[in-house]
Formats: sequence, C-alpha cells, structure tokens
Amino acid sequence: MMKKGRLEAFSDGVLAIIITIMVLELRPPHEATLAALRPLLAVFLSYVLSFVNLGIYWNNHHHMIHVTSRVDGAILWANLHLLFWLSLFPAAIAYYILQQTILRKQGPGSLLATAVGRDLKGKLSPLFYAVAIPAAFFQPWIAGALYVTVALIWLVPDPRIERKLHK
Amino acid sequence: MMKKGRLEAFSDGVLAIIITIMVLELRPPHEATLAALRPLLAVFLSYVLSFVNLGIYWNNHHHMIHVTSRVDGAILWANLHLLFWLSLFPAAIAYYILQQTILRKQGPGSLLATAVGRDLKGKLSPLFYAVAIPAAFFQPWIAGALYVTVALIWLVPDPRIERKLHK
Amino acid sequence: MMKKGRLEAFSDGVLAIIITIMVLELRPPHEATLAALRPLLAVFLSYVLSFVNLGIYWNNHHHMIHVTSRVDGAILWANLHLLFWLSLFPAAIAYYILQQTILRKQGPGSLLATAVGRDLKGKLSPLFYAVAIPAAFFQPWIAGALYVTVALIWLVPDPRIERKLHK
Amino acid sequence: MMKKGRLEAFSDGVLAIIITIMVLELRPPHEATLAALRPLLAVFLSYVLSFVNLGIYWNNHHHMIHVTSRVDGAILWANLHLLFWLSLFPAAIAYYILQQTILRKQGPGSLLATAVGRDLKGKLSPLFYAVAIPAAFFQPWIAGALYVTVALIWLVPDPRIERKLHK
Repeated sequence: MMKKGRLEAFSDGVLAIIITIMVLELRPPHEATLAALRPLLAVFLSYVLSFVNLGIYWNNHHHMIHVTSRVDGAILWANLHLLFWLSLFPAAIAYYILQQTILRKQGPGSLLATAVGRDLKGKLSPLFYAVAIPAAFFQPWIAGALYVTVALIWLVPDPRIERKLHK
Repeated sequence: MMKKGRLEAFSDGVLAIIITIMVLELRPPHEATLAALRPLLAVFLSYVLSFVNLGIYWNNHHHMIHVTSRVDGAILWANLHLLFWLSLFPAAIAYYILQQTILRKQGPGSLLATAVGRDLKGKLSPLFYAVAIPAAFFQPWIAGALYVTVALIWLVPDPRIERKLHK
Repeated sequence: MMKKGRLEAFSDGVLAIIITIMVLELRPPHEATLAALRPLLAVFLSYVLSFVNLGIYWNNHHHMIHVTSRVDGAILWANLHLLFWLSLFPAAIAYYILQQTILRKQGPGSLLATAVGRDLKGKLSPLFYAVAIPAAFFQPWIAGALYVTVALIWLVPDPRIERKLHK
Repeated sequence: MMKKGRLEAFSDGVLAIIITIMVLELRPPHEATLAALRPLLAVFLSYVLSFVNLGIYWNNHHHMIHVTSRVDGAILWANLHLLFWLSLFPAAIAYYILQQTILRKQGPGSLLATAVGRDLKGKLSPLFYAVAIPAAFFQPWIAGALYVTVALIWLVPDPRIERKLHK
C-alpha cells in the first residue's frame, strides 16, 4: 500500500537523535587529571548501556522492517508508539506490539511469522523488566543485572530472520 | 520537475528532531520514589500530546506527498513554512496552505484532489484552534479539550487517500 | 565516480539540525499573558530570519546538486565547508566556493555552467555581507536591511536552473 | 544479505548530529565588540578541529561502505561501535576495527582489500594518538600538533579507493 522507505528514514532519524542526545549529559572534566574523570563514570556507563540498548533495537527493527512488505496506518502508529517509548527507556512491550501489528498484516505463513516462531525472546523481555523495575527501588544492582541480561539476549541482530533469509 | 525524495528526506529530518527535542525538557527525578515523579507529570503529558500531534502531521504529510507527483519552488516553500510552524505548535493553517499549493499544481482531476474532496477536516481544524487559543486565557481545560478533539479527528492517517489508492 | 545520494542525505541531516536547533533558544513565556510574549519577540524574529535563510540555502543547494552528475573529494570538502559556516551564519562565500568547485569538475558546457551564467547573484551576495557586517557595529538596522535584501534576492529557488531543466 | 542503505542512512543521521551538536557550546558574545569574541576563540577552534575530524571520518566511511557489497550483524555492530566513540572523540581504533570486520567478510581479493593494501595510515593513526594522549597532560601543544598531523594524513578522502574505482 505504502512504501516503507519513509518509515525507515523517519525511524532512523528519531533513533539517531535518541542514541546521541545523551552525550550532552557528559560534560568535559574541570581539570586535566584522571581523578577529574571519576565523577563522570556513572553518566558514562549509563550512556554506554543506553547506546547499546538503542543499537539493539535499531538492529532488530532494521531486520523486522526488512522482511515487512507492506505498511499501513496501524503499523505507522505502532512504530511511532515504539519510538516514543524508546525516547524514554527500553521499550520491550512497544516492540512486541509493533511486531504483532506487522504479523497481523502479513499472516501466519509470512517470512516474519516463521522467523519469529514462538518468540521466547519477545515474551521473556517484558517479564524481566517487570521484575527489574520494582527491584530498582530496593536493590538497584538486581535491576541493573536484569537490564544487562535482556540486552545480552537481544545483542545478536535477530539470527532467526537472518537464517530464514539465507534459505 | 524536481524529485520529491529530498523534500521527504529533509522533512523527515526536521520532524524527527522536532518530535524528540521536547524530551530534553524531561529531567530525571531527584529521588528514586514515585512521589518524585509527580512534578514531571505535566511535562510528560505535554510531551505525549506534542508527540501524537507531530505523529499525526507526519502520517498525513507522508500520505499527501506520496500522491504528489511533481514538486516545484512553491511547494518547497509551503513545506518549509509548515515545518517552521510545526517547530513551535500544531500548524493546521500551514498544512492547509501546503495542501492547496500541491492541489494548484496537480489540477482538479488529480488523485489528491478527489481524495481531499470538500476537505471538511482541513477546514474545521483551523476553526477549532481559533476558538481554543483565546479560550486558553480563560478556561485552559476548554482549550485542552479542543486540541485533543482536533488530534482525534486526524488520528487515522488520511483514509481518503488510502481508500483512493486501493481502487 | 561517487554517488551523490549520501552527500545529499548527510547535508539534509546537518541542515535539518541547524534549521531547528535555534528553536531551543525560544523559552515558553512565564505567564499566560500577551505581555509575557513581548521579550521573546527579538529571539522569534531571529529564528524566522535564520529559518528563511537556511531554507534558501537548502532550496538552492537542492537545485545545484540536482544538476551535479559526479561528486569527488573536492566537492565533498567544499560541501562540508559550506555546512560548517551555515551552522554559524549565512555563508555566501562558502556557497560560491562549492559552486565553483562543482563547475570546475563539470566544465563550461555543463547544464549548471550555462544556468549560472555570469552569476550576478553569487557575486553580489558576498559584497552585500561585506558592507553589512562592519555596518552592524554602527547602525544595526542597515545591516539588518542588507541581510534581508540578500535573502530576498535568493528567495526564489534558482529559476535559472529550473528554466534550463524545462528546455 | 542485508541492504546497506539503512546502515548509511543511520550513520549519516548520527554523524550529522555529532558534527553539529558542538556548535551549541558557542554562545553569542555579550557585546557587539571584537574584544567580546576573544573568549570564544578556544571553543571555536575546538569546533573547527572537531568538525574537520568528523568530516574526515564521514568521507572515509562514505568511501569504505561504498565498496562494501554485503552487510551482516558483525558489521552493523562494528559500525555502531565506531559511532559511539565518534560521539566522544576521534576513534581511529574503532575505524580500524570496522575496516577489519568488513575485510574479513569480503575476503583478500576484494576491491577494499587491494585498495587498503598494507594500510600504513590505519596503523599509524592509533600510534600517534597513543603518544598524543599522555603528552596532553604535560605539553598540550605536542598533543595538539599530533592530532592535527593525523587529521592531515587522512584529509584526502581515501585516494586508494578512488584510484581503484577508476580502473
């Protein structure tokens, strides 16, 4: 119906801004000593984690849209919904909604549907976040460990799709 | 005359920046308590409304340019004029001007012309804003309700165009 | 030699950022009165002038690259040089340099060469700025008038190129 | 496997933001005198050096991806890794890693492999930085001179690739 080129271009623009904007929080140290770098460490590590997470979303988004043939109004809005939440924090639920919206459009025999399969990753990630968020109020390191775990699960750009594309 | 690819790419870039820039106003809360999130609520809701509004403009812009075959200097400037106002607030009048500029170029028999028809939505929206803006000085909630109403009218990416494209 | 697509995409990205970034200077007024808007007027007018100027550069850049068939290292750098100065202020000299770099590559019989002709606009603009800049230290309104004059000269996206493309 | 268009578009978006964002540090002078410009000189020169360096990376990235035929997950991540470090400072090592990742994919007979050859530039640059960074703590001008030297080495967009493309 609609070409997906502009959906990709707009998503790339928004993601490029979100992924780099956090660097504005990193102020240059006041003195040219290694000690002056220490207070920046927490912001730096948050920037690394945020950059990696957005990189993961971008890679998987890239793969998912790549095997999406047609785009309609529902997909456009599910995509904007994902971009909105990604501007605030990792958005596993919004990603899952976008995926389901595309699957509904494409039908169960589509390349994406067979690649996603039972979608263990997609179902586990919101669960991990659901545990991590309340845990952050009591034991921040548990939350941190769970956030990193979800990132590691998704780090490899969706090999399910890559494998299917090979065949 | 001119290819519309760069007009789309430039508009996507500007809209991607405008839609995300407001997140910079959202500062992380000072404490890790739910109470510390409360003062952020007003900024958060403004961000949601602004994001949805710009999403609506992007979707409709996407559809309108999609059925625009040729781009000339007048359309380029009407587009820049729209982008300028969108960087400040919803810009129903500027959108209407761009649409009329494209229609003038394409003629009354074009796909866009028949899709737009009498253009009730395009004519009602500036009227609603004309009532909402003075009302905001007396009863902010009336203005808010009218802003949300206009957003709802336009939320579905222009089904008139989508329907015409199907035939 | 090289495809010009990425040069256009990168220029669009940089110009989209430059054209919108100044809106960050515009803070919302403290009170909901018209009087509270008055101190924002100077920043607003600067934003309008800056937006129009960058729109002019974008439109003319669009036209010039459109009739550029091949891109090499010298053109890439002349283009980056233009983008650098445009991030600070209107950059008529840098635009002129980019145009000459492209002309040198394309030869005197090219579409661009015949379209540009004696290039009165390109030669007058730096002159106007050369008068306006020192004048700004003594009579700011003279400088303002000259800046607006140059903008008006260029407002129509290069009709020389548009006319040639028609033939 | 994957199309490289989106990798280029996303990289262009991120690089466009990084290259322009530093201009936000440049505040307009308080008075309309030449003397008021003097304190801005250091920030201005940093902006020039940063812009030139990112321009060099963009140009060489442009050339390298141009002769890259296929993109996989490893290349996507090596590219994101480069973009991350470029948002902080010149990233010769990350560029070298991306180049090696692409070379591993393409094999020793590829256009890129023969163009890069022994890659003296790629191996010298990290060495220069390794000397410059500790030197900055004792004699900042030595570090500055070394940074400028590396920039000069890379200023010409990779003529090795351009030469190979001609044949």
